Amino acid sequence: MRFFSDNAAPVHPRVMQALVDANVQDTAYDGDRWSKALDGRLSDLFGTEVRALWVPTGTAANCLALAALCPPHGGVLCHRDAHVQNDEGGAPEFYTHGAKLILCEGAGAKLTPATLSATADAIANDVHRVQPHAVTITNATEYGLVYRPDEAAAIGEWARARGLGFHVDGARFANAVAATGASPAELTWRAGADALSLGLVKTGGMSAECLVFFRTDLADATLRRRKRAGLLFSKGRFLAAQVLAMLEDDLWLRLAAQANAGAAALADAAAGRLVHPVEANELFLRATPDEAAALRAKGFDFYDWADGEVRFVVSWDQGADAVRPLADAIRTL
Amino acid sequence: MRFFSDNAAPVHPRVMQALVDANVQDTAYDGDRWSKALDGRLSDLFGTEVRALWVPTGTAANCLALAALCPPHGGVLCHRDAHVQNDEGGAPEFYTHGAKLILCEGAGAKLTPATLSATADAIANDVHRVQPHAVTITNATEYGLVYRPDEAAAIGEWARARGLGFHVDGARFANAVAATGASPAELTWRAGADALSLGLVKTGGMSAECLVFFRTDLADATLRRRKRAGLLFSKGRFLAAQVLAMLEDDLWLRLAAQANAGAAALADAAAGRLVHPVEANELFLRATPDEAAALRAKGFDFYDWADGEVRFVVSWDQGADAVRPLADAIRTL
Amino acid sequence: MRFFSDNAAPVHPRVMQALVDANVQDTAYDGDRWSKALDGRLSDLFGTEVRALWVPTGTAANCLALAALCPPHGGVLCHRDAHVQNDEGGAPEFYTHGAKLILCEGAGAKLTPATLSATADAIANDVHRVQPHAVTITNATEYGLVYRPDEAAAIGEWARARGLGFHVDGARFANAVAATGASPAELTWRAGADALSLGLVKTGGMSAECLVFFRTDLADATLRRRKRAGLLFSKGRFLAAQVLAMLEDDLWLRLAAQANAGAAALADAAAGRLVHPVEANELFLRATPDEAAALRAKGFDFYDWADGEVRFVVSWDQGADAVRPLADAIRTL
Amino acid sequence: MRFFSDNAAPVHPRVMQALVDANVQDTAYDGDRWSKALDGRLSDLFGTEVRALWVPTGTAANCLALAALCPPHGGVLCHRDAHVQNDEGGAPEFYTHGAKLILCEGAGAKLTPATLSATADAIANDVHRVQPHAVTITNATEYGLVYRPDEAAAIGEWARARGLGFHVDGARFANAVAATGASPAELTWRAGADALSLGLVKTGGMSAECLVFFRTDLADATLRRRKRAGLLFSKGRFLAAQVLAMLEDDLWLRLAAQANAGAAALADAAAGRLVHPVEANELFLRATPDEAAALRAKGFDFYDWADGEVRFVVSWDQGADAVRPLADAIRTL
Repeated sequence: MRFFSDNAAPVHPRVMQALVDANVQDTAYDGDRWSKALDGRLSDLFGTEVRALWVPTGTAANCLALAALCPPHGGVLCHRDAHVQNDEGGAPEFYTHGAKLILCEGAGAKLTPATLSATADAIANDVHRVQPHAVTITNATEYGLVYRPDEAAAIGEWARARGLGFHVDGARFANAVAATGASPAELTWRAGADALSLGLVKTGGMSAECLVFFRTDLADATLRRRKRAGLLFSKGRFLAAQVLAMLEDDLWLRLAAQANAGAAALADAAAGRLVHPVEANELFLRATPDEAAALRAKGFDFYDWADGEVRFVVSWDQGADAVRPLADAIRTL
Repeated sequence: MRFFSDNAAPVHPRVMQALVDANVQDTAYDGDRWSKALDGRLSDLFGTEVRALWVPTGTAANCLALAALCPPHGGVLCHRDAHVQNDEGGAPEFYTHGAKLILCEGAGAKLTPATLSATADAIANDVHRVQPHAVTITNATEYGLVYRPDEAAAIGEWARARGLGFHVDGARFANAVAATGASPAELTWRAGADALSLGLVKTGGMSAECLVFFRTDLADATLRRRKRAGLLFSKGRFLAAQVLAMLEDDLWLRLAAQANAGAAALADAAAGRLVHPVEANELFLRATPDEAAALRAKGFDFYDWADGEVRFVVSWDQGADAVRPLADAIRTL
Repeated sequence: MRFFSDNAAPVHPRVMQALVDANVQDTAYDGDRWSKALDGRLSDLFGTEVRALWVPTGTAANCLALAALCPPHGGVLCHRDAHVQNDEGGAPEFYTHGAKLILCEGAGAKLTPATLSATADAIANDVHRVQPHAVTITNATEYGLVYRPDEAAAIGEWARARGLGFHVDGARFANAVAATGASPAELTWRAGADALSLGLVKTGGMSAECLVFFRTDLADATLRRRKRAGLLFSKGRFLAAQVLAMLEDDLWLRLAAQANAGAAALADAAAGRLVHPVEANELFLRATPDEAAALRAKGFDFYDWADGEVRFVVSWDQGADAVRPLADAIRTL
Repeated sequence: MRFFSDNAAPVHPRVMQALVDANVQDTAYDGDRWSKALDGRLSDLFGTEVRALWVPTGTAANCLALAALCPPHGGVLCHRDAHVQNDEGGAPEFYTHGAKLILCEGAGAKLTPATLSATADAIANDVHRVQPHAVTITNATEYGLVYRPDEAAAIGEWARARGLGFHVDGARFANAVAATGASPAELTWRAGADALSLGLVKTGGMSAECLVFFRTDLADATLRRRKRAGLLFSKGRFLAAQVLAMLEDDLWLRLAAQANAGAAALADAAAGRLVHPVEANELFLRATPDEAAALRAKGFDFYDWADGEVRFVVSWDQGADAVRPLADAIRTL
């Protein structure tokens, strides 16, 4: 049973159907009716005017956003365990033409104004030091924690006070919305965010994420950067259609809630072993090598995160019921 | 009736079915069984050991190939009307970190050793001039001509004699293979090519092209560049499955042959108006604004290429029968 | 006798003396009194408020200016024989992160609104084409012609009408000012220029050029780019002192006038052989290989520019008297 | 009295004289006799065949070296307090096209195999993580410590075992050689180094450092990168002449020994206050704000490094005698 990544899950049937429905003739690139609907659809979702672009990967979404917020000679404040720092193969540096990721601390990969200040205040404002131009947070974080609206807003305020941009890596934004019960708006633009990488692939999509600009003036140049990065699909309607299908009837949120519920059930079973609070769909457990082996022997697949620590990720198709065998197995360790 | 681009055509049903078939659980990124099958499948097709990577767009394929063949301080010889120069929004410069496209002449966007030499011989070999490191040709060309094996081989020999890499932009490689009757090998590695952007989207695919390295030593670094460009899909199996579906039973070639046949039928009807010989699936016709308007009034959609010149592209779903209404309309102009 | 390049000329004694005078203790980088004097000194020279940065080479000046005027995904219109295109080893692409030089025509390497429009009007405004963001001209041009104030202003107006930046490569700006009798202002900001690479090395300096921003808002980010390019000298006062020495008592202009006079004397001698009008300090002559050999046999050193064409450059230390032996030799060919 | 930076010191008279001597006609760029002498002169100094290029700044030397050793998608291991990380305004990222500096620990800004392993071993070898391609150390370090031959060799061996390049930032290499009594060879290529940024400006030069390649195959492409970075001076002889003057009769080493002696005398006076051992020409002292103010009131100029910590740098013109007033002042605090 798969728990090593929500990236490996299948695609939701409604997304598959959307591909079939879009397989009719229309204009190339992003001139088609699906692509053209994104701005409006996402503006509705966020309750404000946004610009929305389909992109195929979360890495592309993140890096296009950072390139829009930070010049090549600038820096982006992020957590030292952030996906942009550790898991994108240098893509932020590629897209920004060499901007520097400036690393900050924080439990559970969460930043706070205090941890941001600790790093930023030590940077003298002279030409010898790369200056921060933006902050990026991941919500839900790489360790499965979530920023609540007030926490996101505190960072937004901190950024605004220093004239910095603010980006949210929302690879698991659906899980954060589902977990907090907050509105998408509260976790983004109302908190001061300029851009959001709205992840849809981990939560049921196939190959389409959505880059949402609350600072709509950043979108036009990003259309050119998207093309320049080889990301302008000639049959772009198949990406736009995925985005629209995921958003319809809050499918994205319902699937994320299901995954969160699965994780909560597992957290219950693993109460004494949790390395981090379980707030979204990821669990990090203390487990000896023998314990890990015992779980694997029962057919559970997961990730060895660190010495004596393993990671489980619950996917959209694995709710509270589906994870019961694993919950039982953890309890009997 | 659509003739403005083969980019706007629908996706072949077998590709759609392949997506459905791949919608099962497997490993993330490119560790799945479909992705792992590409090297072997493409090695079979070309009759030599190759490394093959899925990528989502032709621009990405071209630019990853050029980045593998040319350092940032180098240059790439191409035709002045090449897609890499005019239609990729600066992606070659982005991926290569600023290598220079060095423009050459040639009728119908075809290069020859003579036109390459005319440009290359004028470049003094000193540090003030950007030096060529590679040649790229487009087969079929941007004007619908094809390089035959001996023509490709002449360029390969020219490149090898100067120590330059050799890349083939095969956005419409299927049409070139179908048109020439040559084998894929004859038009690529047997002609000295180091890498091929094997286009599959224009000829029936959805969102997967294949970057083929005949110089297999170039592949490993390209895997990293692909990730760094935000192109490593988490559910990569859906790209690999498209490639495999297109190659099965020579589907890619049969669809291209059908499009070529449609174009040939149109060429027949437009004999006196042809700007370039029609060898693949594109036609460039002389037409007055009134004539263009008359065709549009009958429901034909196409591209105004230049003053008094229009472009028609025949797609994989438009064979000789399907284009008859347009052929008739052209004849009656 | 040296006529192959004004780059090879010695340094004027007053520049040497300025180095000696600056060899006292002061602050590092550009905080010293000489560096701090540049803004004021150049503002005086141009009769408007400017920001002025020392840089060590003309290539650095040009490319910092272009990076300030053009984003990575943009393009810069220049003459196809421009120094930035042919003689800077790809530095414009390096500094701009891959912006594209878009080549235009024009006799004697001079651009006009008409030749600019011929190129620019053919570029569709879509994401597939790299869009022009700036124009750069070289005054005096690579073929020794000069733009007069009205010619420069015509280009400035053309650029402004399209929202493009306007840069002047003034490697031999002194020669252009001396030749036209125009003021530095008339040839730059009064003509709409945003930035000037003010060349001082060819006309008597050692290792300091001056990058002048008429759009003063571009200077601050350029200070960071200069540092990031490894160009912020720790003992920057030795560059600033050179600039100041060259400007004092119009030394730069007097030396350029002397070189121009030498070239004029040679042009007189070579009247029937001139490939281009001689307006500054360069001559391009038709000469057979035998004639070239005869001149070399007499000890004259110059550059074989093209088949049957040679180039002579007169340096600041070679006025009308100094070139007489060469003039005589040319006459007796 | 100046103690805030050796960057602010004057230029040694023999360097000034070398500029005068080089002010004769010769070829442009790096074709002159001085530039051509560098390979031989530096090969003599290091007792092995090297390639040696003049560059104007240490930042340029460092970053050209890193670009030669690390591809854009790679990483460079360095100390978290390294000059390349903190004081070059993002130049390493610019020159390498976005390679990542991977930060390691170590007392006094010194790396060891153990601290390198602690960082490097945590990096999984997959495409998601940027992989190390090189190690760079600074000798003497940013805190005035030196690597002795066995310490440098241990790092060289560690790097070689992992297939990584090895660069030495020698902004104060002269001080390290003088302090250790080791030969230049022992601290570089005999220790496995591939390249050295040989600093000469801080120790008496004006504007010329020397980039030395022990891996001579890296030099040719670096000549092109140097040009592309706008660093190829047209009158390059004035940089080469500085390098040669500094090396003659070991001037560079004698001046560094003098600065070291001054620092040693100060260390003696400040024994109880030292934050780091004093091994080269820098001192970091604990001092209260009142104490710092008292020293400043006596005319001493220095740098506030951190809370309760000040930095003094002794320059080439400040030997043991010259620093006595400061030594006395420190003693009487």
